[in-house]
Amino acid sequence: MEIEFVNWMLPLIPDDPRLEVPAGDDAAVLRTRGARRTVLTVDMLTEGVDFVLGANCSAKQVGHKALAVNLSDLAAMAAQPETIVVAVCLPRNSDCMIPQELFKGIHTLASQHDVALAGGDTNTWDGGLVISITALGSVEPQKAWRRQGAIKGDLVVVTGPCGGSILGRHLTVTPRCREAQMIAKRFNVRSAIDISDGLSLDLSRMMAASGTGCILRATDIPIHDDAMTLSQQSGDDRSPLEHALSDGEDFELLLTLPAQDAKELVADPPAGLHPTIIGEVIAAQGVFLEDATGTQQPLFPKGFVHVFNK
Amino acid sequence: MEIEFVNWMLPLIPDDPRLEVPAGDDAAVLRTRGARRTVLTVDMLTEGVDFVLGANCSAKQVGHKALAVNLSDLAAMAAQPETIVVAVCLPRNSDCMIPQELFKGIHTLASQHDVALAGGDTNTWDGGLVISITALGSVEPQKAWRRQGAIKGDLVVVTGPCGGSILGRHLTVTPRCREAQMIAKRFNVRSAIDISDGLSLDLSRMMAASGTGCILRATDIPIHDDAMTLSQQSGDDRSPLEHALSDGEDFELLLTLPAQDAKELVADPPAGLHPTIIGEVIAAQGVFLEDATGTQQPLFPKGFVHVFNK
Repeated sequence: MEIEFVNWMLPLIPDDPRLEVPAGDDAAVLRTRGARRTVLTVDMLTEGVDFVLGANCSAKQVGHKALAVNLSDLAAMAAQPETIVVAVCLPRNSDCMIPQELFKGIHTLASQHDVALAGGDTNTWDGGLVISITALGSVEPQKAWRRQGAIKGDLVVVTGPCGGSILGRHLTVTPRCREAQMIAKRFNVRSAIDISDGLSLDLSRMMAASGTGCILRATDIPIHDDAMTLSQQSGDDRSPLEHALSDGEDFELLLTLPAQDAKELVADPPAGLHPTIIGEVIAAQGVFLEDATGTQQPLFPKGFVHVFNK
Repeated sequence: MEIEFVNWMLPLIPDDPRLEVPAGDDAAVLRTRGARRTVLTVDMLTEGVDFVLGANCSAKQVGHKALAVNLSDLAAMAAQPETIVVAVCLPRNSDCMIPQELFKGIHTLASQHDVALAGGDTNTWDGGLVISITALGSVEPQKAWRRQGAIKGDLVVVTGPCGGSILGRHLTVTPRCREAQMIAKRFNVRSAIDISDGLSLDLSRMMAASGTGCILRATDIPIHDDAMTLSQQSGDDRSPLEHALSDGEDFELLLTLPAQDAKELVADPPAGLHPTIIGEVIAAQGVFLEDATGTQQPLFPKGFVHVFNK
C-alpha cells in the first residue's frame, strides 16, 4: 500500500525552484535565499489525542491540521513558510484512502501558503494513525519573534477570538503566517507566541520567558461563539470566559508591543484579522485577571500541556 | 511526565553557535553557512516494526537508531550533518525513563557527529512508541550525491559487509557521514544510496533512477558474519548471500564511480572503512547476478519496502 500511495503522490508534487533535489532521493536539497535564517519546527499529531477519525473528522482534515499547527509555529516567529517533510504511521489495514486524503489536506494548505513538500516517510504498523510534520521557514537575521522580549508597559494583543475550538475549529485552523509577516514589517513586536495550549497557559509561558507578568482585562478578552455554545451545553460548568482562557488550539497569536504600536495595529490591522488589546505587561511576574470592577486575581494557567518547543 | 522530561532535558542540550534561537521557543532559528545548501530528510521508527523494546533492545538503542538512520540518509547525499528535531509519541503509562533513555541515545550519537538538537515535540497516547527525527545537513551547491548519475562502465562499490543486521546490528548502526564526505572530496562519485531496505532493492532503485542496470558478482559481495550466523539457524532456508542481498538495515553506502576512482577508493579507503567492488554498471536496465561460473541471472530485488524518500 505504501508504494501505491507514494507512486500516486509523487507526480502530484509540483516542481519548486527552492528544491535543488526534490522528494524521491535519500534526502532533499534546499536552496536557501541569501542570508535569511532557517526557522525549524516539528509537531506530531496522534489519533485519539489530537483527532478522532470519524464522521466529524476526515483524514483530509487531519492533514490540514497537521500542517496548520506547524505553520502557526512559524507564524509565531514571523517566519515565511518554505518547506515541509511529512512522516506518517498508518494503521496496517487502512487502504490508500487515508494517506491520499491526508496528502490532499496537506497539499491544499501547502499550496495556499506556497510551501514546498520536500519529502517524507510512510510507515504501516499495528497502531493508530500518527503524523509528524517538520516545517522550515525563513526570516531575516535577528528578526524572528521570540517568546522573550516583552517589557513593562507593552500591551498584549490577541489576533482573534478564543475558546471552544474542540467543536470543530481545531480541525480547520487558519495559521496567521501572512498576517504575522505583515505585522512584523509595520510594528515593533517585542514578544510572540501562538495559542496552542490555551490563552492563559501560552501567555504565562511568554511572560515567564520575558521575565515579566501581565494584567489581563477579562471584559476585553474576545470570546469565540464556540466558547458560548460549549458553555451552554448540558454538563458544562465553565463560563465562556473560562473556555476562552484555557481551551487551546485557537492558533491565534499573542503579541506584546509598545502601546502606540498596539493601538495602531488594532486600528489598522491586516485584512481579515481582528486583533484586540487584552492587557498590559507589568514588571512583577505572574498573570493576573482584572474583572469589570477592577479587582485583580492571579490567573493560574490551565490548558493542554503538550510540550518541548511548543 | 512530558514536562518533567523536557525540564530534565533542556539543560542538557549544549549551546550551539549554529542556533540563533535554540530549542524552547515556538521554533528554532538556524544560521546557515555561506552558500551551502540545506539537505533535509525524515525517518520515523515504530514499535513492533523497527524495534521491539525489551531485553535485546533498550530505549537508548532506539534513540541511537532513530538518529543513525537519518544520518545515513545524509551520508548518502555526502552531506555534513548539522541539526535535528525530534518528535516522539510515548505510551501513556511509561515513566520518564523511556524518553530519557531515548534522549541519551540521540544525544550521544549527535555529539559524535557534531549535530545540534534544535527542538522537538513530546506526546503521550494510548499507542506504542513512535519516534520521528528530521535531520538537516549541508552540502556545497550541486555537490549532493544523487541516486541518479550512474553511467555504463562505472564500478559499484559497497562500503562494508551486509546481511543479518536483525541479530542486533540494526540497533547499533554506524552512519557513514564522515567517510562519505572524505570520499566526496577525493573521488568522482556518480551515484549513491544507503542500504536501508536491502542491497538488491536499494541498488535496483539507484539503477532505475540512473536509467541503467548492473551486473553484481556474487563472489565479490561482502557477507557479514551475522548473515552466516543467521543462515545456520534452524529453520532458516536462505544462504548467507541471500541474506546479504536482501536483509536490509545495513546502512552501508552503495556508490558508483568511474573504474579508476573505484579502484583507488578500495586501495586507499578512509580509515576504518572496508569498501569492496561488487559489480559494474551496464546500459541495459535491471540488476543481474553473475555466479562463479560466469552465469548471469536477473536478480529480483527483495527487501523491506519502506518508502517515500527512502
